[in-house]
Amino acid sequence: MKSREVEKLEDLSRMFDEKSDVALGKFLKEVENQTSRRVEILKESATRVGKAHIIGITGPPGGGKSTLVSKICKELAKQDLQIAVVCVDPTSPFTQGALLGDRVRMLELAKFPNVFIKSLATRGNLGGLAASTSEIVQVFDAFDKDIILIETVGVGQIEFDVLEVADTVVLVNVPGLGDSMQTMKAGIMEVADVFVINQADRPGSDESVKDLRMMINESQKKDWKPPILKTIATLEEGITELISKVEEHKKYLQDSGKFKEIRETRNLKMFHEQLIHRIAEIVESYIHSEESIQMEIEEVKRGTRDPFTLAEKIGDKVTIK
Amino acid sequence: MKSREVEKLEDLSRMFDEKSDVALGKFLKEVENQTSRRVEILKESATRVGKAHIIGITGPPGGGKSTLVSKICKELAKQDLQIAVVCVDPTSPFTQGALLGDRVRMLELAKFPNVFIKSLATRGNLGGLAASTSEIVQVFDAFDKDIILIETVGVGQIEFDVLEVADTVVLVNVPGLGDSMQTMKAGIMEVADVFVINQADRPGSDESVKDLRMMINESQKKDWKPPILKTIATLEEGITELISKVEEHKKYLQDSGKFKEIRETRNLKMFHEQLIHRIAEIVESYIHSEESIQMEIEEVKRGTRDPFTLAEKIGDKVTIK
Repeated sequence: MKSREVEKLEDLSRMFDEKSDVALGKFLKEVENQTSRRVEILKESATRVGKAHIIGITGPPGGGKSTLVSKICKELAKQDLQIAVVCVDPTSPFTQGALLGDRVRMLELAKFPNVFIKSLATRGNLGGLAASTSEIVQVFDAFDKDIILIETVGVGQIEFDVLEVADTVVLVNVPGLGDSMQTMKAGIMEVADVFVINQADRPGSDESVKDLRMMINESQKKDWKPPILKTIATLEEGITELISKVEEHKKYLQDSGKFKEIRETRNLKMFHEQLIHRIAEIVESYIHSEESIQMEIEEVKRGTRDPFTLAEKIGDKVTIK
Repeated sequence: MKSREVEKLEDLSRMFDEKSDVALGKFLKEVENQTSRRVEILKESATRVGKAHIIGITGPPGGGKSTLVSKICKELAKQDLQIAVVCVDPTSPFTQGALLGDRVRMLELAKFPNVFIKSLATRGNLGGLAASTSEIVQVFDAFDKDIILIETVGVGQIEFDVLEVADTVVLVNVPGLGDSMQTMKAGIMEVADVFVINQADRPGSDESVKDLRMMINESQKKDWKPPILKTIATLEEGITELISKVEEHKKYLQDSGKFKEIRETRNLKMFHEQLIHRIAEIVESYIHSEESIQMEIEEVKRGTRDPFTLAEKIGDKVTIK
């Protein structure tokens, strides 16, 4: 007689095989809400991933990222590809209530059956958000999406964590960057693979391209020279060029072996995170069960005992066999 | 007969008691460079901290933060306080080679024997930078500094981690914030205790104050209403007012019990970090010694085995007694 547990697992596996949108939507929600099946879903999806091209689209707020993302989707959707959008941008109409114009844009995408949009709430823990982004991406990947677009805003700590998941990072800016260029220098320049000057009909776009070109030439990138593109997302100008550059970058990753490398690094990272998480749980529950340690922690808290010595003392009690 | 180890530890303790600038400089360097004595220095300092008022000064690049910091120092130095500056701003003249004008500014501070400046290099690992900031602050605190100023730039993930150490966060902006306001909304607004519009002689400063006032009133802060100040750091205008607001915030923290609370949270956090770090080391060394697990990890890396199940399996081998 099969246990209910086993039945459920077989169910899960079957649902992954069938790849219906209903199952996908259900799994995404369970992962996001951290239900009891979350880990089983992630286990099941872990060995089914690796095909999707994961593209991060980032940049400061007000640069028209959402419009750009929806136009890219529209263009890709026509090519009969399976597309997923993960939106972790708190300023995006995909995550917020948004204006009428933005809703119209979303409806535009809704008519394509091969586009699946998932918005992640950004309230609450930011570290958690980055973690669930990579889990959401994993589930999409296991459902054989060809392209997964991650829209994230170029602000704060979440961005880098979120972008770690991506194969190709597109940095979207607007003409007349000025001071914001300085800001960008501190980190994001190095992770961008394709630069976009959106709203290129605004004055100063050629200058911005020139400024960017100089900054890129200064930087240390070797094999891949990040291209700089001008787009006017609202008029759908430059979208096909952008897509072809992104595809070119994918080809570069594949030819150089980096596509595989990124996946391997991602797998190892997931393993280490899970391992530390699991062991932290074990230590946590030990600490809570020992009254004498509770008292010592209280002393650490009050500043009368040093945290290093206590951490070493507990560490000495750990054995693995 | 005393072992050399014990002698060294007594030495360390004595150096902490004497609180010479030479010892301080030595300890800071050892902590930053992670020498073998780092942990001993941190252990020794852990139970000596708690008095310093730790002030984070942040904001986008180009807002005149460094000038502001040096003017604040100059003013505080006159009051016969012991002051430390920890500089983790990659755009600051304190960390970079810098222009002549900036050097002059630093020399201005050098003449005060009660100001100690420590710059942290930002090249390399960002997470590591935040960790060493809190360690550097701990050593300064153990050396009885009255005020520790942390200068950090309002960009990227490091900022939030670095600012976690601070009791009082000062957010420095310039008139005509425009789009950058939107950017700020995403996180930093909530952690700021005092707002500064620097370069207030530039047009639009009153408007910026008004805009900020509106945003603050919208936000959920309760007991402490963050004040908004106008400064012209280059002319030393508004500096004493800024210092008095910062002191007011310290008084608020002390009266509300939050000053103590922040220290307790910091102590606990340090303990948990050390504990996880220690246990990760143990697990790491176990993994490296077991060939069969190495092979399973290789499978995880290649994507043929799921990371969750392997993490659970290793977790099951851990016992604490």
